[in-house]
Amino acid sequence: MARLQAIYHIRCDANAADARAQAIAVEQSVEMPLAAIDDEHVLSEIVGRVESVREIGAGLFEARVSLSAATIGRDAGQLVNMLFGNTSIHDDVVLHDAEIPADVAASFGGPRHGLDGMRRRVGAQKRALTCSALKPQGLPPARLADIARRFADGGIDYIKDDHGLADQAYSPFNDRVAAVAAALRGTNAHYVPSITGDLDAMHAQVSVARDAGIDTVMVAPMIAGVSNFHRLVADNPDVAFLTHPALAGASRIAPPFHFGGLFRMLGADAVVFPNHGGRFGYSAETCRAIAKRSLENRARLRPCVPVPAGGMSRERVTEMLEFYGADIMLLIGGNLLEARERLTAATAAFVADVQAWKA
Amino acid sequence: MARLQAIYHIRCDANAADARAQAIAVEQSVEMPLAAIDDEHVLSEIVGRVESVREIGAGLFEARVSLSAATIGRDAGQLVNMLFGNTSIHDDVVLHDAEIPADVAASFGGPRHGLDGMRRRVGAQKRALTCSALKPQGLPPARLADIARRFADGGIDYIKDDHGLADQAYSPFNDRVAAVAAALRGTNAHYVPSITGDLDAMHAQVSVARDAGIDTVMVAPMIAGVSNFHRLVADNPDVAFLTHPALAGASRIAPPFHFGGLFRMLGADAVVFPNHGGRFGYSAETCRAIAKRSLENRARLRPCVPVPAGGMSRERVTEMLEFYGADIMLLIGGNLLEARERLTAATAAFVADVQAWKA
Repeated sequence: MARLQAIYHIRCDANAADARAQAIAVEQSVEMPLAAIDDEHVLSEIVGRVESVREIGAGLFEARVSLSAATIGRDAGQLVNMLFGNTSIHDDVVLHDAEIPADVAASFGGPRHGLDGMRRRVGAQKRALTCSALKPQGLPPARLADIARRFADGGIDYIKDDHGLADQAYSPFNDRVAAVAAALRGTNAHYVPSITGDLDAMHAQVSVARDAGIDTVMVAPMIAGVSNFHRLVADNPDVAFLTHPALAGASRIAPPFHFGGLFRMLGADAVVFPNHGGRFGYSAETCRAIAKRSLENRARLRPCVPVPAGGMSRERVTEMLEFYGADIMLLIGGNLLEARERLTAATAAFVADVQAWKA
Repeated sequence: MARLQAIYHIRCDANAADARAQAIAVEQSVEMPLAAIDDEHVLSEIVGRVESVREIGAGLFEARVSLSAATIGRDAGQLVNMLFGNTSIHDDVVLHDAEIPADVAASFGGPRHGLDGMRRRVGAQKRALTCSALKPQGLPPARLADIARRFADGGIDYIKDDHGLADQAYSPFNDRVAAVAAALRGTNAHYVPSITGDLDAMHAQVSVARDAGIDTVMVAPMIAGVSNFHRLVADNPDVAFLTHPALAGASRIAPPFHFGGLFRMLGADAVVFPNHGGRFGYSAETCRAIAKRSLENRARLRPCVPVPAGGMSRERVTEMLEFYGADIMLLIGGNLLEARERLTAATAAFVADVQAWKA
């Protein structure tokens, strides 16, 4: 029977590491004393199995635990539950990575469009994509639409909602989508509205967006619930999905697996994450690993576009392109908006910098 | 305009605390440089406002940030997003608590049954409730039903699915519910199946459970997505809901608010959490605060039953009752199952201990 490999990083004393790994294997599977189990199939297949434990730093151990793939029932939420449900409550453990059997990964489907599809939507060749964000929340639809139009006039590829934009009385989703879609008509820019609420609300919002000619949306899977994110992707194969990292936590699930592994496998065509040197604490090494994991060949899933963000500026464009290469989407929000009445010119300069860059 | 109060605990140098609090207030609202905002309404109402910053320990600061209630649009996911979406990614900050305006809390509805309703279901007076767990996952429905019957014959009040039980090929949800419901017919025990998957799957499972005469179910809101959990509660007012803490993390959101505040406000009738001295690291102080927060009078929400669990044993029953009092549900799983062929007798002894206890 196929098995998942969950890889945990545990902080503990050297003489406790084997026992901690074994405790995690039990916690993440049968969650009861093995002595009380008399079923041979459960003992041999369902109980988590410690495959290896090795020291990778002072007081830091990597434990590899295999779990039966049959336990996940092909549900994304149950996959996360099996990998990290109860163990997330232990503060000495991080879910570092997971290796999912290729047929299981393929059954989740991965990106339906991926890097090539995200480029094709905006007619881009092998260059970095550009993106900005509609904000601040609190503005009415007409004001946001005006900002969107100015980004578009500057030649931006994608304009995403700030992740704080939801379905608020001062800017109802349907009105905002109608206003922004109308403002962008005749431009090359693609509006990426943020999809929120329960699954029914999300389905309805995607439907409204599609009717307005929109082909790309954003979801925060850790808020929506990964099963609902996955369902939304499966039900809308013509729509491309950006994921937002809201509620993803600081370090309990290692970001390269979280975004480049899990979100990609569930259908993210592009993954927004906090770039190093911005407002968040991810290291350059973590960011490089996220980008690599998003793009690398795994289970024949399409490559997913890394979108480093979070306090980026025009001044960093060349540095970021040198760091990540062209298989990326550069997202600059507030720094462009600071140009105020010169927003279109600032956007055009950002776009020109990206288009001019050669590896 | 009504405002939420989000209370963060920040680890930083004393001379950085004010700036960190202000950065969080911006991150959790407009997420852009204030200098780039020219809208008076956004600046005065939507931008997060630092209400106070005070040192509460060495290098530990409590920042109170108020946010416009209009930003949450009455959606549970957006509430979590506003309180902690991006800030969850900063590893120096914990969401310690939040004060929600009473009308907003009331609009989410809170427990539909609560402590009184959970007692009424099983005909209990003012005593602690008893619960055990069906496990291990991997057993077929008939085997789980047999275990359930033996718990019931011992006089247990509630029998919940282990949170690893989902909709797996070796134990499909519908078959399991049918088998367990049939096994419990004629007993006083209430089966609490675990509801998993996307919102449609969860709705279908609740419907199947109801058709089998089941009136109480379990959901892990952080996996399901809080909006979907809240929707499921709202759509099934006759059903009582236990919440499971899977994926809730160790401490990024302080457990008293997470379980006793947020989950209760969204409709949890009983909240499972890891008791101190078991397999998890919560302190006695944290557990006491969870229980207090679950039960105390807030916004006229019904009291929610605290369910300390995670490696509890019969030996700890009196200690736990002395610690928590009788407004509680005691959940002992693996320790009862270790009795194997004497499971019914061990359950009966557990039940007798609880019923005999006087404050």
